[in-house]
Amino acid sequence: MSAPNPSSADMIAIDWGTTNCRGSLLDANGDVLDTRYAPEGAGGLHADGFESVFERLVDGWPELPVWICGMAGSRQGWREAPYLPCPALLSELGSRITQLRTASGRIVCIVPGLLYRDSNHNADIMRGEETQIAGLLARQDDFEGLAILPGTHCKWVAVKDGKISRFQTFLTGELYSLLATASILRHSVPADETDIPAEHPAFLRGFDEVISGRVPLVSGLFQIRTQDVLNGAQKDDSAARLSGLMIGAEFAAAETGGWFKGGKQGAQDGFIIGGRGLTPLYAKACELVGIRARTLSGLDASSRGLWYLAHKQRMTTA
Amino acid sequence: MSAPNPSSADMIAIDWGTTNCRGSLLDANGDVLDTRYAPEGAGGLHADGFESVFERLVDGWPELPVWICGMAGSRQGWREAPYLPCPALLSELGSRITQLRTASGRIVCIVPGLLYRDSNHNADIMRGEETQIAGLLARQDDFEGLAILPGTHCKWVAVKDGKISRFQTFLTGELYSLLATASILRHSVPADETDIPAEHPAFLRGFDEVISGRVPLVSGLFQIRTQDVLNGAQKDDSAARLSGLMIGAEFAAAETGGWFKGGKQGAQDGFIIGGRGLTPLYAKACELVGIRARTLSGLDASSRGLWYLAHKQRMTTA
Repeated sequence: MSAPNPSSADMIAIDWGTTNCRGSLLDANGDVLDTRYAPEGAGGLHADGFESVFERLVDGWPELPVWICGMAGSRQGWREAPYLPCPALLSELGSRITQLRTASGRIVCIVPGLLYRDSNHNADIMRGEETQIAGLLARQDDFEGLAILPGTHCKWVAVKDGKISRFQTFLTGELYSLLATASILRHSVPADETDIPAEHPAFLRGFDEVISGRVPLVSGLFQIRTQDVLNGAQKDDSAARLSGLMIGAEFAAAETGGWFKGGKQGAQDGFIIGGRGLTPLYAKACELVGIRARTLSGLDASSRGLWYLAHKQRMTTA
Repeated sequence: MSAPNPSSADMIAIDWGTTNCRGSLLDANGDVLDTRYAPEGAGGLHADGFESVFERLVDGWPELPVWICGMAGSRQGWREAPYLPCPALLSELGSRITQLRTASGRIVCIVPGLLYRDSNHNADIMRGEETQIAGLLARQDDFEGLAILPGTHCKWVAVKDGKISRFQTFLTGELYSLLATASILRHSVPADETDIPAEHPAFLRGFDEVISGRVPLVSGLFQIRTQDVLNGAQKDDSAARLSGLMIGAEFAAAETGGWFKGGKQGAQDGFIIGGRGLTPLYAKACELVGIRARTLSGLDASSRGLWYLAHKQRMTTA
C-alpha cells in the first residue's frame, strides 16, 4: 500500500467490537487510506472509557465525520444506538444513527444494531454485521440471497431489495473455542481453528456425519476424545473433525430453519463474509449443500459498509 | 446412621473419579458402614501420587479387600485396567480386574472400563458407570431396559440378560457448565444447574423447543442471551431454559440414535442413576418422551456395584 494521502480523506470508519477496535481513514470512494488498531474492545470498557481510546486512535487524522459500528453502540458501550426492527432498509440505516460530540469537538455517528422477531416471538439481535451487509451492497447493490458471517456468533442473513428481512444467530464459533480450550477435548485439539484445510478428510467426515443426521453433535464431540484415548489421534485431525462437527451442526440447524434446501435443488446464491481462517471451511460447507457462495473479506466489508451508510445518509439529507 | 461396627466389615469400595474420591466400608450385604472423602481426584494425580492418598483414606479401616472403580484405572491413573469390549457380562467383570499390592500390604482390585464400537467403527468408552450399572443389577438382577446416567458426560446404557450391550456418551453436562461459566451466557445464567425445578415453565419450554425440532440448539442458545439483553430476563428463568435446551438436545440425539421411540408407543423401562440435582430433570424428560423411569442414587449405585462385582468374583473363584 502506498503512503496515505490525508488530503483526499473523506471520513473515518471504526469497527468497534467486543474484543478490539479498528479505525480506517477512507477517501470519497470508500477506499482505505490508513488503518489503525486499538486493543481496547468494547467488552472491557465502561461508557466513560471510550473517548480517550478513541482520541488516541484518531490522533493526527483530519477532523472528518466519524462513523462507528459494533458493540460500542450497545447499552454497555459508549452510547446506545437502539436496535431497529427487521425488515430494515440498509440505505436508510445511516439516518437512524446516534450522534455524539467529543470534548475535542469531533462528531461521532454510531450505527444501530438490528432486531428480528420470528413468528414464535423469539428475538435475535446483531450489531456490526448489518454494516458488513451494507458493505456487500456497496459492492453489489442488487444482491439478493443469503449472507453468512462466520465468527464467534455466526449470523445467517437474508438480503433482498436492499433490505435485511431476516437473520439467525448460531453460537458455533464460541462453542468451538470453549470446547477446544476448556472442555475435555482441550487435551486432543489445538486452541486455534483457523489453519484447518477445507479439504481435510476429518473435516469432511465430521461435517457429513452431522449434516446427514447420523451422528448427533452432543455425542460426536465425545467420540473425538475417545478416538484420541484409544488410538492416539493427531491433534490436527481431531481439530478438523471438531470443526466439521460444529459447522455441520450449524448447517443442519440452518437447513431446519429453512435457510436452504439440501440436495442441490433450488440452489441459491450466497456470500460468505469473514476472515481468512473460517471462510474456506464455510465455502466448502456451502458447496457441499448446494449454496453457490462467493466470499468477501469481513474487514473490507465493515469499512466499506460504514462508507455506504454515510454516503446514503448524505444523499438523503442533502 | 449408627456408628460403624468395623467387626462386621467385609470389603472397602472406592469410587475414584476425575475430581474426587469416595471410600466406603461395606458389610457382607453391601450395606455402608462408614464413608470417607478425599479431595484428590484422579485427574490431578500422577501414577505415583495415588498410594499416599489411598493410605490416608483407608487409615484405621480393617485390612479387607479393596475394590476401586473410576478414572483411577485409566492409563493416566494409578494402574491401568484396560477397557473391555461390549457386550460385557457384568457378573464376569469382577474376574477381569487389575490387581496391585500397596507397600503396606493391602490388595487393591481395579475395575476395568468398557468400550463400545458401533457399526461405523466409532468408539465410545466409560469408566465407573459400568460399576453403577452393576449396582442396579445388585438391586434388580433381571433388569432389562435403558439406564441413563446424567453428569458431565452423560451415558445412555442398554442392559439385557445381565449385560451391557451398547452405550452412548453425550457431552451435555460439560457443555452446560462451559456455557454457564465461560460463554456469553454467563452474564445471564447462574453457574449451578442443580436447583432447577423440573416443572419450571422455562425448562419445559426449552426442552420442547429442541425435542420438537423447532429450535436448533446452536441457535436457541443465543436466544437466551437475546431475551436477557432485550427484556432483562431472570437468571433462574434463563438457567431453566438453558437446561431444557441442553437436555432436549440430548434426548433428541438419543431418539435419533434409536434409544427410544417418541410418541409413547413402545414405551420402555428405564432407570436414571445420578445425583439429586439432575435426576428430577431427567425424570421429567423421560416422562415427556414416554420412558417409564425410576431413579437410583449414583453414590449408592457405585458402592453397591463394587460389592456386586466382588461378590460375583468370589463365587466364580470359590
